[in-house]
Amino acid sequence: MGTIVDITTSLDGFVAGPNPTLEDPLGEGGERLHEWAVALEAFRECHGMEGGETSADSERLRESVDATGAVVMGRRMFSGGQGPWDADPNADGWWGDDPPFRAPVFIVTSHPRGTVAKEGGTSYTFVTDGVESAVRQAREAAGEKNVGVSGGANVVQQAIKAGLVDELRLHLTPILLGSGTRLLDDLGGVELERTAVIDSPGVTHLTFRVVN
Amino acid sequence: MGTIVDITTSLDGFVAGPNPTLEDPLGEGGERLHEWAVALEAFRECHGMEGGETSADSERLRESVDATGAVVMGRRMFSGGQGPWDADPNADGWWGDDPPFRAPVFIVTSHPRGTVAKEGGTSYTFVTDGVESAVRQAREAAGEKNVGVSGGANVVQQAIKAGLVDELRLHLTPILLGSGTRLLDDLGGVELERTAVIDSPGVTHLTFRVVN
Repeated sequence: MGTIVDITTSLDGFVAGPNPTLEDPLGEGGERLHEWAVALEAFRECHGMEGGETSADSERLRESVDATGAVVMGRRMFSGGQGPWDADPNADGWWGDDPPFRAPVFIVTSHPRGTVAKEGGTSYTFVTDGVESAVRQAREAAGEKNVGVSGGANVVQQAIKAGLVDELRLHLTPILLGSGTRLLDDLGGVELERTAVIDSPGVTHLTFRVVN
Repeated sequence: MGTIVDITTSLDGFVAGPNPTLEDPLGEGGERLHEWAVALEAFRECHGMEGGETSADSERLRESVDATGAVVMGRRMFSGGQGPWDADPNADGWWGDDPPFRAPVFIVTSHPRGTVAKEGGTSYTFVTDGVESAVRQAREAAGEKNVGVSGGANVVQQAIKAGLVDELRLHLTPILLGSGTRLLDDLGGVELERTAVIDSPGVTHLTFRVVN
C-alpha cells in the first residue's frame, strides 16, 4: 500500500512531445511513447477494447491496475492537454464515460467542483488545496491498495519533492522526442535506489525506491 | 569496427552536474556518476591504480577498452571542464602524463596545435575542421577496432546528428542531478533500436543501435 509513480518516458526524459493539442494531447510524436502499452491485452481491457497481446508485460500491467486503489493526477492530464478545457474548467475531461482508471481519481486543480461519478468504478474528485491533500485523500480511498500518481510531470515532481512517493516505476522507451514535457525536472538532491530492471520488447522497466 | 558513444548519465539525463570547475570538472555531484566505474579493476588499471572489483562490469569495461582503437572527444573533456585552460589553449590537458585512453585521441577544437604523444599509447591530435573530420581520422587510426566517442555532450550530439554513430552505450545511474550538462539534448527525430539491457550493481547498461 505504497504511493507509486508509474509512467512512460522517452529516452531523453519526456512524457509528452512538443505542442500538445486537443487532437494530440501527448504532443508531436508523444503517442509513440505508449505504443508498447496500447498493444497489451490488459491495457485494451481497461480501455474497453478487445484483443491485444497476452504477455508478461500485460500480466504486470493487470497486476498493477488491480493493486491500485486510487489515482492522483493533474488537471491537464484529466482534461487531455492544453486544449479548449483551459477555457471551460467544468468540461468533462478527456477520458470519456467509461474511463480506464476503475478507481477514485483525485485531480489537483485550482477550480473547485463537485465529485463526478463515472462508469466502471471511476470517480473524479477535484482537490483545490494541493498535491499533499490529494495524495492524503487518495490514501484514504485506496484502503490497503496502492495510490498511483499518474501525471502530469508537474504533479509527479511536486509529489516526489514533498516526500509523498515511495516508488518510481519508469517505463523507458527507446525514443528521442527532442522537446516536450520533461518528467524528472528540478529533482536534484532526491535520492533513489534502483530495485528492479525488466527488459521487455520495446520498453525497459526500471523501478526505484524513493529514499524519503 | 563501429563508432560507439559510451557514456554514463544520471537518471535525469546529465553527464555532468552544474558549475564545473578546475577542481571539480564534472560539476556539483557529477563525480557520483562514475562511482560504479571507479570501483572496477579494469578502470583502475587504465588509470594506473591497483586493486578494484573483478566483476562482470570490470570484464565488460576491459573488453570495451581493448576493442577501442581510437577516441574522439571535445576540447572541454580534454581540458577537464571550463577551467583556466580556456585562457591557455596550449595547456596540457587534464589527464596527466599517462592518460587512460591507451589509443590515439582526436580532439575537436578551434585551436590548431601539433600532435602530442603521451605514455601508454595515448596521443592527442587536435582537429579544427569539425566532428566529421575527427571521426574520419579516428576511423583511419582505429583500423579494425572501434572508434569511441567519449564526450562531452556537445560532441556526442554533433556526431549522432551527423549520422556518424553506430551504437549508443548508456550507463544509467540512479542519480538525480537536477541540472548540469544534458547528454541527449536536441536529438528529436533520431531513431534508436534498443539492443541490450544489463542490470549491474549501481548502474543499468542500455545499448542502442542508431538507425542511420
